[in-house]
Amino acid sequence: MNLISQFSNIVGINNALISQSEIAPFLTEHRDFYHGKSSLVLQPTSTEQISNILKLATKTKTPIIPIGGNTGLVGGQASDLKGKSVLVSLSKMNKIYNINSTSNTALVESGVILQALQSVSAAASRLFPLSLGSQGSAQIGGLLSSNAGGTAVLAYGTMRQLCLGLEVVLPNGEIMNDLKGLTKDNTGYDLKNLFIGAEGTLGIITKAVLKLFPKPRGQSVAFIGVPSPKNALELLNHAHERGNLTGFELIARLGIDFATRHIINTCDPLPYHHPWYVLAEMSSLKSQTDAQESMETFLSYARDNDHASDTVIAKNETEAEAFWSLRENLSYAQKPEGGSIKHDISIPISAIPTFIEQANKSVNHLIPNARFCTFGHMGDGNIHYNISQPIGADKQEFLDNRETVNQRVYAIVDQLGGSISAEHGIGQLKRAELQLYKDQVALSLMQRIKETFDPENIMNPNKIL
Amino acid sequence: MNLISQFSNIVGINNALISQSEIAPFLTEHRDFYHGKSSLVLQPTSTEQISNILKLATKTKTPIIPIGGNTGLVGGQASDLKGKSVLVSLSKMNKIYNINSTSNTALVESGVILQALQSVSAAASRLFPLSLGSQGSAQIGGLLSSNAGGTAVLAYGTMRQLCLGLEVVLPNGEIMNDLKGLTKDNTGYDLKNLFIGAEGTLGIITKAVLKLFPKPRGQSVAFIGVPSPKNALELLNHAHERGNLTGFELIARLGIDFATRHIINTCDPLPYHHPWYVLAEMSSLKSQTDAQESMETFLSYARDNDHASDTVIAKNETEAEAFWSLRENLSYAQKPEGGSIKHDISIPISAIPTFIEQANKSVNHLIPNARFCTFGHMGDGNIHYNISQPIGADKQEFLDNRETVNQRVYAIVDQLGGSISAEHGIGQLKRAELQLYKDQVALSLMQRIKETFDPENIMNPNKIL
Repeated sequence: MNLISQFSNIVGINNALISQSEIAPFLTEHRDFYHGKSSLVLQPTSTEQISNILKLATKTKTPIIPIGGNTGLVGGQASDLKGKSVLVSLSKMNKIYNINSTSNTALVESGVILQALQSVSAAASRLFPLSLGSQGSAQIGGLLSSNAGGTAVLAYGTMRQLCLGLEVVLPNGEIMNDLKGLTKDNTGYDLKNLFIGAEGTLGIITKAVLKLFPKPRGQSVAFIGVPSPKNALELLNHAHERGNLTGFELIARLGIDFATRHIINTCDPLPYHHPWYVLAEMSSLKSQTDAQESMETFLSYARDNDHASDTVIAKNETEAEAFWSLRENLSYAQKPEGGSIKHDISIPISAIPTFIEQANKSVNHLIPNARFCTFGHMGDGNIHYNISQPIGADKQEFLDNRETVNQRVYAIVDQLGGSISAEHGIGQLKRAELQLYKDQVALSLMQRIKETFDPENIMNPNKIL
Repeated sequence: MNLISQFSNIVGINNALISQSEIAPFLTEHRDFYHGKSSLVLQPTSTEQISNILKLATKTKTPIIPIGGNTGLVGGQASDLKGKSVLVSLSKMNKIYNINSTSNTALVESGVILQALQSVSAAASRLFPLSLGSQGSAQIGGLLSSNAGGTAVLAYGTMRQLCLGLEVVLPNGEIMNDLKGLTKDNTGYDLKNLFIGAEGTLGIITKAVLKLFPKPRGQSVAFIGVPSPKNALELLNHAHERGNLTGFELIARLGIDFATRHIINTCDPLPYHHPWYVLAEMSSLKSQTDAQESMETFLSYARDNDHASDTVIAKNETEAEAFWSLRENLSYAQKPEGGSIKHDISIPISAIPTFIEQANKSVNHLIPNARFCTFGHMGDGNIHYNISQPIGADKQEFLDNRETVNQRVYAIVDQLGGSISAEHGIGQLKRAELQLYKDQVALSLMQRIKETFDPENIMNPNKIL
């Protein structure tokens, strides 16, 4: 029996895609950056099937690429052009087994879509706080494998902090069960966090116990026009000390320009233009009034101390959603403006103004009139440092600068003690850079862990390392 | 040159203890459970010295035992009776390099004592939230190596959540530098969390970047008399939904009896006796009034719904400290009551009442009149299930039941999906039990990691695994 049939038999014929038209959507991603080949996509329906898939893969040295919602931004889910890889989609493992509102935990399969978990939690008066643009398609397994972040990290943490336990199938087919979901469990090495953020190179996450929170009774969202990132930094410190800050996003004016220009139904949040904006959210477990009061106190401080040029509070949920939606759309809004060179970096929070100043200067020196659509999760030190081509420039000519721009930006990041990947991961996109900027001892430990866990190198090969 | 001289030369003669009188304090611990032998205690003053120590240890296959404040409760820091081990005390590496109140981080050496860090942070209007009975001697390195918890975990997490980066010397002497201290850094496998909680078996932690928080402006502490653990559970859920809950401890009446009887200046918190008590703390970033109001709203709910028989709020900081001090002293207060058999377990929060009921029944069946001094961090599902000997019983006869009691208690813990070690770790004390209760696939991964990181098995051998 040939390999395709052997693999297909494990999941049953209805769960094995072999026609290229059905496989095609798995071989590219929405930005059209990565293109791969494969003759087989498996859609297992149980952990045991995945175990059998990996046993066969180990025996036959077949590369396996796990795929969640296919929303990753670094090619971690992309296949290569050799066509030997078998793709394992988790989409059919999408059961939400249990929402425990006493222990504040959710037990789910890894194919569950983020938005589905958010909804089910909300129905039980609980909050699953991870929130990001792709939440309508991103799956829990992929979010765990990339240690996803998003806009609520400053209050609730990344997926690593939101996960209490995992079930994982190891490359040799063994199933590790760590699904107790306890807050405290000091019984040996922390294996869970090795798999979280490993981008599918150490095994396949099949189930998870996730942390839930009481749903805030009130939320106040404001847009604040600020003179500079330095003012935003002052505001961040103040906001942290004054209330339950659940969002703090920095946005350059250019982002607002792009969004109001290209995204339908998007308005300028404030009557006049400001060089920078902060989108701030405060939550309260007590009441809407309490959240609102915290925000108002914060905003009056901001105005009184000249850190804010103008402010506006969302009057209702619809307005609050519109504010957040503007923020979520910044990435899409850049597309119609031509070529862009993007960086997902993080730096110590106190160094953000310095970073922006130095990086802009360095890039402008190379590309006069480059346009900086800088925004990001300032509360986490995570900046999406995105550069759009000069108006009227040749797109390809601009994009040819990518390598040089990256080198300049990453050199500044490195010098300020930052990271070349804050939340998107390494995947294929930053493999070479990782070798340059990561501590060499850490790199060698990572290599040794990979060899120990996956001696045949079948799990998502050539990603990260 | 003999081995002792070679090791001593690395740190200098003033930092090498070779007389048995100086070594003695390192060979036992305050409960007098573990007794070891050694001819040499090194007190290095730099990471480079530790690197050279471990290089020499690897070359000569010398077992190395790292020691922090020597407050561990499972023998993780204890040496064996062979006397071949070299003890490495971190006490002289106690510099606090930096408190960054913008990035909210502290960079410290691992020999810093917890209380010192708490004080320095407070002076900068910041909170380092880890709080536990031994904070006057426990060191950051040991707290990290044991992933310490304590009373503030429900709001701020264990050491794992409080650590943003590490410097670690590997068994081969290599130095891994991961001290960027970023909130988000998705550049490969999470090595940091492997060392945290590894109890010194994978390397020696030499520096850490820790997370700081804004110092709450208000804190309200209350003692609540409750009819049963089930009522306490109801209160916990309610408290979580109503305010910034920063402490929620469950205490059996017997604990209050022991503390008021044996700890000087300790008073009964409430005029009448109740079968169970909750010690609750709410914090506010806004004001003392805000914290007080949250607590009062919570307590009136508790009384109105018959979950609380009586309640008292600390009127000032002194009273609040007295309440907490009663709680911290529960362990010491048990000593004068004769032999005790103790368990540091965790279970899903919703199963706590069931656990207490089943465990009491099972232990009472074996030892009629056994006395249950049950208390713990209910908000984390972490119960210190401590049993004191029956009044008038023979101490040794009671302690001879230890194995059988442990088996019964751990069987119930296991059946309810809990852990045999919530926050104390495995060390030597629970090595055998770990093999019984831990997932076998996880155990084998742990073994493989240990062999990969420490092929000569020099780092704290025979601990955990």
